[in-house]
This record gives sequence, structure tokens and C-alpha cells, in this order.
Amino acid sequence: MKENGTFITFEGPDGAGKTTIINLIAKELEHALLTREPGGIEIAEQIRKVILDKENTAMDPRTEALLYAAARRQHLIEKVKPALQDGKVVLCDRFVDSSLAYQGYARGLGMDEVYAINQFAIEDLSPELTIYFDIEPELGMKRINRNKGREVNRLDLENLDFHHKVREGYLLLLKRFPARMVRIDASGTIDEVYQKTLNIIKARLAEKSL
Amino acid sequence: MKENGTFITFEGPDGAGKTTIINLIAKELEHALLTREPGGIEIAEQIRKVILDKENTAMDPRTEALLYAAARRQHLIEKVKPALQDGKVVLCDRFVDSSLAYQGYARGLGMDEVYAINQFAIEDLSPELTIYFDIEPELGMKRINRNKGREVNRLDLENLDFHHKVREGYLLLLKRFPARMVRIDASGTIDEVYQKTLNIIKARLAEKSL
Repeated sequence: MKENGTFITFEGPDGAGKTTIINLIAKELEHALLTREPGGIEIAEQIRKVILDKENTAMDPRTEALLYAAARRQHLIEKVKPALQDGKVVLCDRFVDSSLAYQGYARGLGMDEVYAINQFAIEDLSPELTIYFDIEPELGMKRINRNKGREVNRLDLENLDFHHKVREGYLLLLKRFPARMVRIDASGTIDEVYQKTLNIIKARLAEKSL
Repeated sequence: MKENGTFITFEGPDGAGKTTIINLIAKELEHALLTREPGGIEIAEQIRKVILDKENTAMDPRTEALLYAAARRQHLIEKVKPALQDGKVVLCDRFVDSSLAYQGYARGLGMDEVYAINQFAIEDLSPELTIYFDIEPELGMKRINRNKGREVNRLDLENLDFHHKVREGYLLLLKRFPARMVRIDASGTIDEVYQKTLNIIKARLAEKSL
């Protein structure tokens, strides 16, 4: 299943500037497709609805992980794969690594276990490059609250432990996939982080066209 | 996660008399719970609805397999596990082996791959005993058609190849799980097959109470 396009994913916590930067990248690159799961794919949207239904309080964490993998599969087959076959640079906001860091590591389901079901979902359609926007959870939280115009509260501080675990998870993934994953320090200004990101992506695309 | 009850699953093609016999067994045994996925579990029913929605023609086979595993997990956690903890004999009409034989083997997704996602779904809640009702596909098909009052047609014959593959899959599983799976020849009368099945189950329950 060799594709002509380039599949790039973006990871990191909220507050790292991820979404803003991907939007700028998508505008800058030619032949880029920006997407995130479920990405308007009808079947993936239906699955996401089951996951997010507030009535479904009895949802087991493993059921949820399997549903995320199912929605991921369908988005990949219906949207990402055709775009890659069309030669596009596909920029995907969050992918398998989010499940590994959040559910596998921080929620304690086990990284290897969550990896196994995602491997089933993606087969050989792994991203060639994954940009990880790294930021201290305290700083990420301050940025989010600045946008919301409020102070850090008690609930945020409880969440802080969780976000430290998520970061630990991502740092483990960086060690595990050194060829695919690149860490970018996201503590600088949006413009600094954007420039670093763009340079890395352009270098990777240039390598491919050699 | 040691349970007090006994978890028994039933496998085999339609036309083997499976459902009729499980119903008789459930009436005969004390403290039995008869179930099949999705088993009235709201979340599992919602997932099943996505699988069976006729509009979802773009559904990828791997998406479908992940959705079945998700519905299985939820049914297991909400219905089977509490009943086992309550000391019940849980009789489940089809379980993991159906996914392995039908999707993994006959549809060609790969038994090991489908096993991996189901292992994630069930963890250590594997059945203690699995009864496999074995029947030649030709005979099973004749029985189904007899009930429908019609002759075997061209479509049935095309299906026959598929049902031979399913049977091959089940026979491989019997070799792989000799301690858990028991083959019962389902070519006899319902009463003969029922008596054999009942004897095996009673013997297994007696062993446990020693």
C-alpha cells in the first residue's frame, strides 16, 4: 500500500498552540489537506456520537478505546488514504499517539494494549512524520486560562497531575519512535513555533523529492 | 478478576440447532443466564445500530471488527461479569470465536489480528467452556431451507463456499484451544444433540464443584 502523498500528524496538549499552527502550515503548503478525526466522515461521526453521548455513563474505558480505533479506521480509509493516493500532504490534528498518551498511559489502559488495537486499525498507514508540541503543563494551562480570561482554579490543579502523566506518555513515545517523532519546544511565541515546525516539514518534504 | 460463576459460550453456523438447544439448556440448569450480544445493553445496542445501518455501505471490514469488539466489551462488563460475580452459569450464544471464524478466517482479516483486538476487549474474562456445534454446511443449509419451505438456490450455493471456510476456521480454533473448546456433532436430532451438550456441561460443572 505505497502512497504518493505525505502523511504528517500533530500531537501535544491543548494550550500548546497546535491547532493555530497547523492552520498556518496548511495555508503555507501546496497540496495540503488539513483534517482531524472524525473529519466529517459519516460513519466516524456516528461512532463519535456514541462515545460523546452524555447518557452513556456506563461506557467502559476499553469500549471507548475500541470505538476511537474504529472511528480512526474509517476516517483513514475514507479521507486520509484517498488524499495520499492523490499526492496530497495530509496534516492530521491528533492520531494514534493521542490514544497512546491519554488512554494508554495517563488513564492506565496500557500503551502496548492500546497500540495493538490501533495497529489493527491503521495497518501500514502510519504517519511518516509526527510533530509533538511539548509544553510544561503549568504553562499550557496558563495559556488556556488567559484565553478564557480567568485564573487557574482547584479543578485545573487536579487536572495538572493528569497532564503531567500525558506528557510523560508523549516523552516515552518520542524515545520509542525516534525516526518518526520530532519534539518541538512550544513554550515560545506562536510565530517562533510555527517557523520551527514549517522548517522541519519542508526539510522532510525536500528529502522525499530527492 | 476471579469469578464464582461459570462462563460458557456456544458456537457454530446457523442451521446447527444452536439457539434451540441453548434455550433447552437454560431451562434445565439452575441459576443460568442466557444471553447473546448486544443483550439489551444500551451502549452495545447503539454500536450494533451503527454496524447494521444499511446506509453505511462504506463501512470498512476492520471498522466493523472493532465495533463488534467494542459492543462485546460493553455487554461483557455490564451483563456477563455481574452475573458471574453473582454465581450464575452464563450461557452466551456466540462470542469471540464467531469473530475469529467469520471475520478473521472466512473474510480474511486474519485470525491473529482479530484475536488481538478481542483479547483487548475481554481481558481475562474468557469462557471456561465453548461448545462448537459442528455440521456439514450442505446439511445446515438444507435444514434452514426446510424451515423456510424452499429449495436450495444459486445464492445458497455461492454462500456454501463461505460456510466451508467458516467451518475450517472453527476447526482450526478447536486445535488451538483444545482445553476450552468441545466439538459436538450436530448432524443428529435436536434431542440427541441436546443430551450430549447437557452431559458435557453437567460434567464440567460437577468437576468445578469437587
